[in-house]
Amino acid sequence: MAAEKQPWQTLAKAKLDSINQSIPAHWRLPSLPRNEERRDVTGDYVRQFLSKEEIEITEALAPTIVESTTTGHWTAEIVARAFCHRASLAHQLTNCLHDTFFDAAIEDAKSLDVYLAKNGKPKGPLHGLPVSLKDQFHVKGVETTMGYVGWLGTFQGKKGTGKERVFESEMVQELRDLGAVLYCKTSVPHTLMTGETVNNIIGYTWNPKNRNLSCGGSSGGEGALIGLRGSPIGLGTDIGGSIRIPAAFNGLYGLRPSAGRLPYQGMPNSMDGQNSVLSVVGPIAPSVSSLQLLVKSLLSREPWLHDPLVHDIPWRDERTVISKDQKLSFAVLRHDGVVSLHPPVKRAVETVTERLEKQGHRIIEWKPPAHKSGLDTLFAAWTYDNGADVRSAFELSGEPMAPQIASLYGAELHAGPPKDATFIAANNVARREYQKEYMEYWNSTAELTGTGKPVDIVIAPVAPVAAGRPNGVSWYGYSGIVNVLDYTACTLPVTTVDKSIDVVDPSFKPLGDLDSSIMDQYDPEIYDGAHVGLQLIGRRLQEEKVLAVTEYVAGVLTA
Amino acid sequence: MAAEKQPWQTLAKAKLDSINQSIPAHWRLPSLPRNEERRDVTGDYVRQFLSKEEIEITEALAPTIVESTTTGHWTAEIVARAFCHRASLAHQLTNCLHDTFFDAAIEDAKSLDVYLAKNGKPKGPLHGLPVSLKDQFHVKGVETTMGYVGWLGTFQGKKGTGKERVFESEMVQELRDLGAVLYCKTSVPHTLMTGETVNNIIGYTWNPKNRNLSCGGSSGGEGALIGLRGSPIGLGTDIGGSIRIPAAFNGLYGLRPSAGRLPYQGMPNSMDGQNSVLSVVGPIAPSVSSLQLLVKSLLSREPWLHDPLVHDIPWRDERTVISKDQKLSFAVLRHDGVVSLHPPVKRAVETVTERLEKQGHRIIEWKPPAHKSGLDTLFAAWTYDNGADVRSAFELSGEPMAPQIASLYGAELHAGPPKDATFIAANNVARREYQKEYMEYWNSTAELTGTGKPVDIVIAPVAPVAAGRPNGVSWYGYSGIVNVLDYTACTLPVTTVDKSIDVVDPSFKPLGDLDSSIMDQYDPEIYDGAHVGLQLIGRRLQEEKVLAVTEYVAGVLTA
Repeated sequence: MAAEKQPWQTLAKAKLDSINQSIPAHWRLPSLPRNEERRDVTGDYVRQFLSKEEIEITEALAPTIVESTTTGHWTAEIVARAFCHRASLAHQLTNCLHDTFFDAAIEDAKSLDVYLAKNGKPKGPLHGLPVSLKDQFHVKGVETTMGYVGWLGTFQGKKGTGKERVFESEMVQELRDLGAVLYCKTSVPHTLMTGETVNNIIGYTWNPKNRNLSCGGSSGGEGALIGLRGSPIGLGTDIGGSIRIPAAFNGLYGLRPSAGRLPYQGMPNSMDGQNSVLSVVGPIAPSVSSLQLLVKSLLSREPWLHDPLVHDIPWRDERTVISKDQKLSFAVLRHDGVVSLHPPVKRAVETVTERLEKQGHRIIEWKPPAHKSGLDTLFAAWTYDNGADVRSAFELSGEPMAPQIASLYGAELHAGPPKDATFIAANNVARREYQKEYMEYWNSTAELTGTGKPVDIVIAPVAPVAAGRPNGVSWYGYSGIVNVLDYTACTLPVTTVDKSIDVVDPSFKPLGDLDSSIMDQYDPEIYDGAHVGLQLIGRRLQEEKVLAVTEYVAGVLTA
Repeated sequence: MAAEKQPWQTLAKAKLDSINQSIPAHWRLPSLPRNEERRDVTGDYVRQFLSKEEIEITEALAPTIVESTTTGHWTAEIVARAFCHRASLAHQLTNCLHDTFFDAAIEDAKSLDVYLAKNGKPKGPLHGLPVSLKDQFHVKGVETTMGYVGWLGTFQGKKGTGKERVFESEMVQELRDLGAVLYCKTSVPHTLMTGETVNNIIGYTWNPKNRNLSCGGSSGGEGALIGLRGSPIGLGTDIGGSIRIPAAFNGLYGLRPSAGRLPYQGMPNSMDGQNSVLSVVGPIAPSVSSLQLLVKSLLSREPWLHDPLVHDIPWRDERTVISKDQKLSFAVLRHDGVVSLHPPVKRAVETVTERLEKQGHRIIEWKPPAHKSGLDTLFAAWTYDNGADVRSAFELSGEPMAPQIASLYGAELHAGPPKDATFIAANNVARREYQKEYMEYWNSTAELTGTGKPVDIVIAPVAPVAAGRPNGVSWYGYSGIVNVLDYTACTLPVTTVDKSIDVVDPSFKPLGDLDSSIMDQYDPEIYDGAHVGLQLIGRRLQEEKVLAVTEYVAGVLTA
């Protein structure tokens, strides 16, 4: 007699229990404040559950952590234990984890300490650095669910492949070789195709800075975890904003590299093989210096020898130089022609612009080819198969789609067959032509900057909102345009919502229903205190420059 | 009353007449030997129609030409005139041209001479260098047919676009800015999707070294023209061997760069938008030094600022260094598991291997993952749309497909609809997995070379044949595998067929019908004298290294 197939609810509950029980009993909080009772759980709130040393460790930046673990100031073990503890708190406060493997992490950390003592040198440039991973990376000993109940106990939905809990993604192997300590996997929306983090296993991941709001997505667990300093740096992926949205919503720096810069090899995905617009992998952290350390370290491994889609482009230090008196040219995007910015986001754009102008940098208005026409090619690529791949993952368990996903992939939207080769080819041509048009617009700004050169960097919103309302109306155009263009972009935190100044302009006139619905979601009382981030956009494969300029701008903002 | 649509034969004949009449009367040969009468029209044969100075100019290599035109040794005008003359002869002997624009070229050359005189410096690193172009590049004042009768008088098959004879491909603009002189467009097979050059306008392009045989394709006119030294360097494109096949068949060096190294922007193509395996653009010339000059010059223009698919990778001089005593590791591919090599190609492989071994270099046997499974993903990509795009181009005029094309795209083969998104995604995944498997095989050779490093370069045939027989059975697996892998490869001439030694091994046992049919086409009498070339294959985006090693190996062969 075949085993009875269990209802998806039973499987999901068992997994949730297992996640929660994996947190050591002495790190569990006896009672948890409801979201309404305690909006902001970052900073002093979370610190009350930590020792002074744990606070010092977990609030150190990645370069400081690596320096400490390689000089003996801290052991890798004590660092790992501190982050395991703080990650446990973060999960209890936001639902940000899909898996913990603290014991393995502490064993790995101990081995690193032994390695250092024995060899007198670190294992690699990330020696002893805890790194969190979105639940899309395959890690030995751990399962990957990508938010699907149907993937529990399988390898990407298939049983008996021999790869279950054994296979590791290329990036994971590289991180280990570099000396990183892996300890947890973070929550994602099932499918990864939305900017909120919701699934039938962990439910909803909240924004720790303002638990009325979403942590963002799809790398949302990363955003919440790092926002609470439960991780010094983590890795996400981005095909429309999935690194930058959670980074911005949580007051963090998140790099969306161009496709082919960092290895995606060996990671599952929705619609794997859709190659009109590739998803990319990139880091999120509380500082640019952390992102630089990780990217530079990964490139030192020559990932192009292990991932056929990575280009042979080593880290280029010479492109990170901004001399003391250098005048940069920025452009500023204040509106994408589709959706208007919520007041705090508008203020953030103005703040950055004014501060840079005060430093003597040139700022021009960014008036590019209509974003809408480029975005159409992106949204078309997301639904080439009319949702067939995504729906087959839901069918494994019979679990329902979250409404955020159903609005994109619900069966009622996709009665037709997948798109055909002729449609796909035409969409690829349309995207390429849009990219060409946009790049020539960028080139044309050489006539406007006064330097004789085109703008260096475009300052733009990541989203029209500081953070999303749960199951609210969304617009991914501000982040998605970067994916259309395959540009490099890095988010930076600018300010927090202040209900006393961030109020809707009474003269606001919406451009249409979408614009109106999104503005309607803004409420100063609800948003008060939330992080507000923006993105700095550079041209394709300009990771070094984008990071350097972001670090510079961050310095100007905090000066 | 609408104009009567003319039969395709009338349009084709008019175009052919116009090509032939564009050759100045004093350069027309009063009588032409039939192919049977005069097999080899290169060398002394073609020289008889040229002055001593014309011979000196047209047999100079690109770097020498540029040096001469920039030092005043030769004017750009005299160089242009010499190549226009020799190209005219080449066309009469092989049918290698689709268009000439000699007057414009001579005007451009005169302007360059004036520029030099006035400014005391050349316009750019290609100052005064004639460059021929496959009839796939758009050049101002000239039409692009890509071999289709239906494209005559149109822009890519469409009338009234306003781009006819005005629009220029990105590469063409770059060449002009670099100082190159453009003067002719060379023949291609309609569709570009075969390794022979045949269409309903110019008929068949012959191999000038042995007019029993094909010049190769699809950049076949380039091969024949440069093989006869009617051009010092030309540009072709390659999605399965279309640069390397004509280069090898004509005793030339042809570089197939990895996708994204050189700009393809603004060029028409068959199945444009099919982006599983991208066609690439690359140069063909009689020396590696010529290829290096062109690639380095093009990269100096930062083409990534004008083509969204070009990666920001400048020319890397440091990767061209091969020190005097450096021992390189080569691998040799003697059989791809599908089709056996004709005797002269087998001998060429042995010759190169032996010479390199004598120099003390390490050679290992190349036993990669079965090529067949990788090639299936390439061939699938060529027919995603089941021939719809190609057939629509034939339908414009009603002209018939050449049999070489009908065997791939004939209506009788493709009754079904285009493939769908699910099929295409699965094919993309299969290709990526094959690339990964292959790259790890390459990495694994570190254990075999004795240097602790993987092989530097793989020595491989471009085709199982020295050159194709007209409308013979073909196998593009040897060239196509490089496109599957997106590796960099450069051809090099090794020897010529010698009927006295290149005979079929009586013990040859075919692996199957294809293998048998291809070996059956070998006949020492027919092939005698033909060029035999091979390719040297490097990893992705290793253009500098592949060119440097090819130059080194060429030196060993001629020492």
